[in-house]
Amino acid sequence: MMDSFSPSTFAPAEAPADDAPSRSERRDQQVQRILEAAKACFVRWGFQGASMHQICAEVGMSPGALYRYFPSKEAIIEAIAAADRKHDAEILAMIGGGESVLDGMMRAGMAHIRHIHDTGDAPLFMEIRAESMRNDAVLQACQACMSQVEGDFRRHLEAAIARGEIDPCLPIESLLPFLMAMGEGIGMNDLPALGVPLDHIETGLRAVLTALLRPRGPSASGANEKSTRA
Amino acid sequence: MMDSFSPSTFAPAEAPADDAPSRSERRDQQVQRILEAAKACFVRWGFQGASMHQICAEVGMSPGALYRYFPSKEAIIEAIAAADRKHDAEILAMIGGGESVLDGMMRAGMAHIRHIHDTGDAPLFMEIRAESMRNDAVLQACQACMSQVEGDFRRHLEAAIARGEIDPCLPIESLLPFLMAMGEGIGMNDLPALGVPLDHIETGLRAVLTALLRPRGPSASGANEKSTRA
Repeated sequence: MMDSFSPSTFAPAEAPADDAPSRSERRDQQVQRILEAAKACFVRWGFQGASMHQICAEVGMSPGALYRYFPSKEAIIEAIAAADRKHDAEILAMIGGGESVLDGMMRAGMAHIRHIHDTGDAPLFMEIRAESMRNDAVLQACQACMSQVEGDFRRHLEAAIARGEIDPCLPIESLLPFLMAMGEGIGMNDLPALGVPLDHIETGLRAVLTALLRPRGPSASGANEKSTRA
Repeated sequence: MMDSFSPSTFAPAEAPADDAPSRSERRDQQVQRILEAAKACFVRWGFQGASMHQICAEVGMSPGALYRYFPSKEAIIEAIAAADRKHDAEILAMIGGGESVLDGMMRAGMAHIRHIHDTGDAPLFMEIRAESMRNDAVLQACQACMSQVEGDFRRHLEAAIARGEIDPCLPIESLLPFLMAMGEGIGMNDLPALGVPLDHIETGLRAVLTALLRPRGPSASGANEKSTRA
């Protein structure tokens, strides 16, 4: 997917088998280095404050070379968002695993929290989100990510409602933005970095999801000892 | 409190009684106009992108006049944060009102959500929060606000635990950052602007707080029909 940002450097279809992979790998590595440098610059100076020149200096690349990969800061944000969508898709795939939707969402939620903590990307997401408030290109990149997550949540929750597994306390049109907002706050604050142990986050998240989704029947697994099992 | 930013314009102690109030009122109005203009600029261009010059143009004031009130963008953020602390204090006072801590937190939470929606300040808070990740002066202003809220939450929750009114599912050291993060996400996303009705937000918030705080005895008022009343 990153290749779409470097049309001038693609390998010809008839490239020798030995040569093509290493050239493509080199390009991927360069793209990765640029994205990491850009993330550092966006966090350090803000999206508005950071210049393509500063990103060049950070990655140790000439402007001409950088522009072959990315024509603008917006194009870099789009690539960061594309990588994020890929990561989100992997995490969202954890929701549907044969168990209950609550257990699936717990697994995906905890994986997301661990990922943000491990990458240290919370300040970057905060910056991109603030920029999305005034920059249409960045807003669209954000919305593509959020629509993917919200769409998958909707699909799994509606299926669970249809099979009588959950009985949420809110209609789906209100439940989805409520879940997304709550999840964004918990993700962006990087609670493990604030000293909250992962098992406490898990307990809190399960209590909250149980209260909102209200699982029914044998698959119900509430954190609250008042919950009943059929 | 705003007066501390304009030491050169304070009225002498012996000023005539008729004159002093109107001069002080004029100054307050000017400060208010500057803060509103600065908020608009920060949201439009970002804190890094906005210049004192742009803020002058927005408010229709010369740089010399503006600098008499605020020597820097950081000083403006501090004044915005000070106003926010004042607002938060009013909201936090709603927690302790003789009822249960859950009802008090619901009332404060809903007032906060309505305030963010009415003022349209969500993008501003997002921007200030992103800036706080790289700017110590802004971080300190943010932390002063958050410490006030967290301190009041702690005081009310510990008192409710001590009198056996609630039995939270997490120790207080984890519960507080969890609540703050969740609340920040819900506040910053301005759910009413996304079309979520206030009564749905209230239902969701009550379900979530009930699950986390676990009220006990006659004052328990859970949204979940499984909750028991003594």
